[in-house]
Amino acid sequence: MLGRMMEMPLLISSVLRHAERWHPWVEVVSRTVEGTTVRSSWGEVARRSRRLANALRSLGVQPGDRVATLAWNTHRHLELYFAVSGMGAVLHTINPRLPLDQLRFILQDAGDVVLCFDATFAPLITPAAAAPTPLRHLVALTEAGALPAGAPDGTLAYEALLAAEPEAFEWPELDERTASSLCYTSGTAGHPKGVLYSHRSSVLHSWALALPDSLSLSTRDVTLPVVPMFHVNAWGIPYAAAMVGSKLVLPGPRLDGASVADLIGAERVTNLLGVPTVWMALLQHLEQAGTRLTTVDRVVIGGAAAPPSMIAKFQHDHGATVLHAWGMTETSPLGTVSRLLPVHDALPEAEQLRVQARQGRPIFGVDLRIVDDAGTALPHDGATAGHLHVRGPWVASGYFNREASDTHHDGWFETGDIGSIDALGYLTLTDRSKDVIKSGGEWISTIELENAAMGCAGVRQAAAIGVPHPKWLERPLLVVVRAEGSGVSADDVRRHLESRVVKWWLPDAIEFVEQLPIGPTGKVLKRVLRERFAGYVLPG
Amino acid sequence: MLGRMMEMPLLISSVLRHAERWHPWVEVVSRTVEGTTVRSSWGEVARRSRRLANALRSLGVQPGDRVATLAWNTHRHLELYFAVSGMGAVLHTINPRLPLDQLRFILQDAGDVVLCFDATFAPLITPAAAAPTPLRHLVALTEAGALPAGAPDGTLAYEALLAAEPEAFEWPELDERTASSLCYTSGTAGHPKGVLYSHRSSVLHSWALALPDSLSLSTRDVTLPVVPMFHVNAWGIPYAAAMVGSKLVLPGPRLDGASVADLIGAERVTNLLGVPTVWMALLQHLEQAGTRLTTVDRVVIGGAAAPPSMIAKFQHDHGATVLHAWGMTETSPLGTVSRLLPVHDALPEAEQLRVQARQGRPIFGVDLRIVDDAGTALPHDGATAGHLHVRGPWVASGYFNREASDTHHDGWFETGDIGSIDALGYLTLTDRSKDVIKSGGEWISTIELENAAMGCAGVRQAAAIGVPHPKWLERPLLVVVRAEGSGVSADDVRRHLESRVVKWWLPDAIEFVEQLPIGPTGKVLKRVLRERFAGYVLPG
Repeated sequence: MLGRMMEMPLLISSVLRHAERWHPWVEVVSRTVEGTTVRSSWGEVARRSRRLANALRSLGVQPGDRVATLAWNTHRHLELYFAVSGMGAVLHTINPRLPLDQLRFILQDAGDVVLCFDATFAPLITPAAAAPTPLRHLVALTEAGALPAGAPDGTLAYEALLAAEPEAFEWPELDERTASSLCYTSGTAGHPKGVLYSHRSSVLHSWALALPDSLSLSTRDVTLPVVPMFHVNAWGIPYAAAMVGSKLVLPGPRLDGASVADLIGAERVTNLLGVPTVWMALLQHLEQAGTRLTTVDRVVIGGAAAPPSMIAKFQHDHGATVLHAWGMTETSPLGTVSRLLPVHDALPEAEQLRVQARQGRPIFGVDLRIVDDAGTALPHDGATAGHLHVRGPWVASGYFNREASDTHHDGWFETGDIGSIDALGYLTLTDRSKDVIKSGGEWISTIELENAAMGCAGVRQAAAIGVPHPKWLERPLLVVVRAEGSGVSADDVRRHLESRVVKWWLPDAIEFVEQLPIGPTGKVLKRVLRERFAGYVLPG
Repeated sequence: MLGRMMEMPLLISSVLRHAERWHPWVEVVSRTVEGTTVRSSWGEVARRSRRLANALRSLGVQPGDRVATLAWNTHRHLELYFAVSGMGAVLHTINPRLPLDQLRFILQDAGDVVLCFDATFAPLITPAAAAPTPLRHLVALTEAGALPAGAPDGTLAYEALLAAEPEAFEWPELDERTASSLCYTSGTAGHPKGVLYSHRSSVLHSWALALPDSLSLSTRDVTLPVVPMFHVNAWGIPYAAAMVGSKLVLPGPRLDGASVADLIGAERVTNLLGVPTVWMALLQHLEQAGTRLTTVDRVVIGGAAAPPSMIAKFQHDHGATVLHAWGMTETSPLGTVSRLLPVHDALPEAEQLRVQARQGRPIFGVDLRIVDDAGTALPHDGATAGHLHVRGPWVASGYFNREASDTHHDGWFETGDIGSIDALGYLTLTDRSKDVIKSGGEWISTIELENAAMGCAGVRQAAAIGVPHPKWLERPLLVVVRAEGSGVSADDVRRHLESRVVKWWLPDAIEFVEQLPIGPTGKVLKRVLRERFAGYVLPG
């Protein structure tokens, strides 16, 4: 017997409609590629999204068609989020930092029919779209008559398209499982794979994201996603902010410490989201400028493990609570959030930091398990590490354009991460399964080793990789980038580590480099590092 | 094109499974009918719910069968919530305060096959179940061997049933639209009508309930629903508390001020939920005892309009924020919540109170409109009043066992309420459409009149009704209950009102009574009051 409740599909257009009806005045502030600041609102975003939907329909975009973006976080990109998905087409956000061959592959694999791009990326367009693709229209995200230099002939101007269209548009009543957006995983090995989100998954994920134990988003917040809108839908913030009526601040292309700090102050931001590398730059700027954040309540750190020293700095110097979060492109991305439980309130600060440095606890909707190589579930004892599996209504069941997936079994997605789960449900990731160092049959966590090293004065960044060893199979090599002006030595780092990790985890060698290889999503490319140190001979 | 996300139904059993996996240690504390306090946990609730599901299956309960309860808020009732819905049957919570003829009607209309009852209600069972019904089993919510006096022969003891069953039970993977629970509206006219909730509506409602701008439920909360579990699923708190891992405190049968105050103190409750009459008793007790609440962060008031004086008292004397909420049995019930927006922060307290006394703003998922008699949408100007319509995925589309509904049109549910909506989206209910006083073609809001009167020193309760008038069609009569020991006069009340409502709203007469007729859900029965004052002759 079915219940007798209204059957209303969960749609991205219903989120936008709610925003327009119930908090149209809430601001959406955007820094643009041109360097201006555009002050809009959820009401204005809704109206312009309807014009945009009309424009895309005029360009021949059909339900299910893919519309690609190569764009920064701006109000125009936000309008594309709502218009493309709302009309039943699929928003395909492309990471502009990808190598050209991957860009080409992705455009072809997705079969995009329209490509919208910021002026910054105009030089990429001709080479990226050189190979045969179904691309029919190029749209520059600019004013009418201000097409960027280097844009191919026939490129249309976004504002000219909008100006030509009426504001009235009826969002279609779609099946809530309809595809809404597409984002390719960075794919360190093999071709990138597209994750195809649905309206349902996006709306459910927004609810989960906004919960008090999750990111706690409300209409009292001023939210600044420094995480790009081409990284897993800016972690779902555009939808969640519209749902709860948070003021949204979009930073445009300038993500350096000074620009972000300036924007935080000017817009009185309460809620920051981004990857550790961005925060490193921000904290460095704030320290040099001798200023403190005064309005920020929470800093959400994800995309890579947050070093405890970074968590401490935000909390100590700037009075902001750090929420360390874990997720993947395949998980929309929210999987876990690390918040203290009441039982931790009385702990000394150092122990609280250790809890916060974990990846956190799953919120309702997400289920996790860790298993051994044979697939047997392992205990949640905080010590036993295993392969992390995840499932839930906003977890991918497969990939766009691929019949099969070799990372899905028994209804679980196999993340490729290694981690442990403690008795209170906190996940701690210790490695990517391909990065873990296997020393004499035991695993050494490169992440823990790196976190410990990054707490050493004078160390700016550190990466651990396994190097072949005749007796132990592999032993750790630690690659360190010194902080500016620091003369920290290998012995200094080793002494620092001695009191922080078990003895057999201590790296057999420490090498200093000018910089680490960083991938298009801001993560250290361990594969490149391993290639660089291939044949490295460990001492004694 | 459909997205490629996991298809996982939203089920009440998935909420319980999450609670057991991720916060099994969080306490569920229950006062029982026997007078004891039972300390359980979400893990224990999950385990016992599985035993209970086995027991119900052994009793022959099939998917879709209705299992009725006549019970207080206790751990056993909570287990019934999860076991009955989780196994695919329908939990039918009956209000024990209903008149016997309605009880009989409801048991027959619902076609309950099992009836579970607290000892308190044993005397009701024989008369209620006297007429022919499909009832096959009676279960007393007691220890084995402790059947209550007056229970019919063959009554089973709840704990004996559980003890006989194993803990293993696989919750079925249901269609998320499957009916989960059934609650009859109080139905002041005609037969009560059953609202049939689904798993989907219950889970979505839980997300909405827990949001920061809604009730803001988290695992740091200790939640005490004084609102009964036979009133719209205790406003959805059992599901939402399990979802977020809030400690849950269940008060059992003793809802007097002293018992509730004692429980709040003993369990360090942070979050209270109930109707105004319960809070009146609590505040009176606290005042007499000269004690203050110290742990309570929020008091959710719903079910009837909260007088501004009550809101002020909680906030002033007890440091708790009042969240005034509106909803109905047909809306699961959450419709709107009144919270201050940032724009209100700088207002004087009296003006903030006026905002809080409104019914509040709709949260995402709920859409509202007000229309005139012809069905035309009215502006959100804070002044124009109209018929309130509501829709959303947790709003009823019809009623159990009824083909048609005369309160549903064009996809909207017609609430029977009269209200206005202001520019910031705050709903203010001014009346039930059947209670509004029509004076010379204009409407007088009985709720506003009553709220103004209840602010007068010496007035404990007030109710306004329309009395026929030769010239104006209807004019207001105000019926007042004096506070204990007060000698407040009609002139005192009139003088108090003169500065608070427009002149033509002033009641033509004020009558004092010992008490007002209160219905089974705690609301004043205006219909009874109108009958009592039928033929009343207004002065001059």
